[in-house]
Amino acid sequence: MIVVKVGGGKNINLDYVCEDFAVLVQKEKAILVHGGFAKRDEIAEKLGHPTKSVISPSGVESVYTDEKALEIFLMVYAGLINKKIVSTLQKLKVNAVGICGVDGKILEGKIKKEILVKEGEKIKLLKGNLTGKLEKCNLNLINLLLENNFSPVICPPAITADGEIINVDGDRVASILAIELKAKKLVFLTGAPGFLKNPDDEKSLISHIDKTEIEKYFEFAKGRMRKKILAIKEAIEGGVEEIYIGDGRIKNPITKVLQGKGTIIS
Amino acid sequence: MIVVKVGGGKNINLDYVCEDFAVLVQKEKAILVHGGFAKRDEIAEKLGHPTKSVISPSGVESVYTDEKALEIFLMVYAGLINKKIVSTLQKLKVNAVGICGVDGKILEGKIKKEILVKEGEKIKLLKGNLTGKLEKCNLNLINLLLENNFSPVICPPAITADGEIINVDGDRVASILAIELKAKKLVFLTGAPGFLKNPDDEKSLISHIDKTEIEKYFEFAKGRMRKKILAIKEAIEGGVEEIYIGDGRIKNPITKVLQGKGTIIS
Repeated sequence: MIVVKVGGGKNINLDYVCEDFAVLVQKEKAILVHGGFAKRDEIAEKLGHPTKSVISPSGVESVYTDEKALEIFLMVYAGLINKKIVSTLQKLKVNAVGICGVDGKILEGKIKKEILVKEGEKIKLLKGNLTGKLEKCNLNLINLLLENNFSPVICPPAITADGEIINVDGDRVASILAIELKAKKLVFLTGAPGFLKNPDDEKSLISHIDKTEIEKYFEFAKGRMRKKILAIKEAIEGGVEEIYIGDGRIKNPITKVLQGKGTIIS
Repeated sequence: MIVVKVGGGKNINLDYVCEDFAVLVQKEKAILVHGGFAKRDEIAEKLGHPTKSVISPSGVESVYTDEKALEIFLMVYAGLINKKIVSTLQKLKVNAVGICGVDGKILEGKIKKEILVKEGEKIKLLKGNLTGKLEKCNLNLINLLLENNFSPVICPPAITADGEIINVDGDRVASILAIELKAKKLVFLTGAPGFLKNPDDEKSLISHIDKTEIEKYFEFAKGRMRKKILAIKEAIEGGVEEIYIGDGRIKNPITKVLQGKGTIIS
């Protein structure tokens, strides 16, 4: 079992990812998890409700999700991108089925309605937040699909035990799915050649990280990479043996990163 | 087996529909099919790409779907409305799974890329249309879900044999699903008390139509009701025994129409 997470950056080539994924599923069981932040931000802007970022008191950036933002999230992730990936895979003769965390309650989490955010030097309490923390996966539906030769294509949002839709981090979705499905390999495809020491220098690729030393690399993780490395740490602790960060912009992105052309954490 | 199709009009109360559907699935196998035209039109307008209606040479109105319109369709139907219904059902302890025709290729059709349209007195050829005609349902995925106590929530678009996404009529989706699943009952919930002789007079309800005489009622079918009656004719010819048209705005809409408070075609 291998879990592939493809990010939502503008430069990601989803056609290349799907072509390579179609080859992969002929050899082993695999799940595709996807993001969609760039398209989400674009549509949110066009709808006059731009994505709002907030900073936690400890300095971690996240998205504030009110009801309208959640609707846009559903539209772009579970509607537009999910179904485009599914149809591309269907063109390649992969019998894909697109589901989000709400379907069959596959991704379950807790809501954090009130969050503390830093605005300049002030700490403020922000209410009405529909973001949550992913806590578990309910594998029934996913296993049923896999056992019957359907290929699940999965994205956030998740759902609470009470049935409320919540925005959760897509990298953690991939990590927790990899842990619970006992996947040996977890691949992250991004808009860069892998994990870079300097995000502005594509030649500063870190080729290998010993999995016992992941924390040493936190200092290089800026912006979105910060959450990715936290998700990777969780995957390691959960028993995933090999984790890869590769380039989602190039042809055969999964094959190439598995061959070592990216960052390997093992 | 019963197939319930809830329309996409502004006044439809999806909470009421879900509450009643949750009671229904405790008694028998059921599938929920939904539309979303009003929300689609609203979002399309906001995104600066308003829904474009065209008239065929024979006078039937339909939607012209270019690539951007198809993206909006995916966002609203497969993303926003589908997942809102699924989460509402999950709140009611129904283990719902939302899928569109693209997933597992459940709704397969043929594309009609070029269509003839009437503009004033002129007949024009319109190219690049991503609308199609639904031809069959692939029931594997739907049956797998039903057999494992998941409740499928289904919407257009459909997909061609080659994997191209196509917009198809939602009422025909419900009819063809009802035929292929050998459903005894097919329920349409609309923004009116049922099928009206005069669409502007809610008291002009037609309570019963003998299924051998459906064609006699074509003259009363205006606007969207025209396609619904055509879909109903198809369902009758395909062996569905009882078809109901009821009010999707009221509490217990399914129970009430099954009790006779709407239009029965039998």
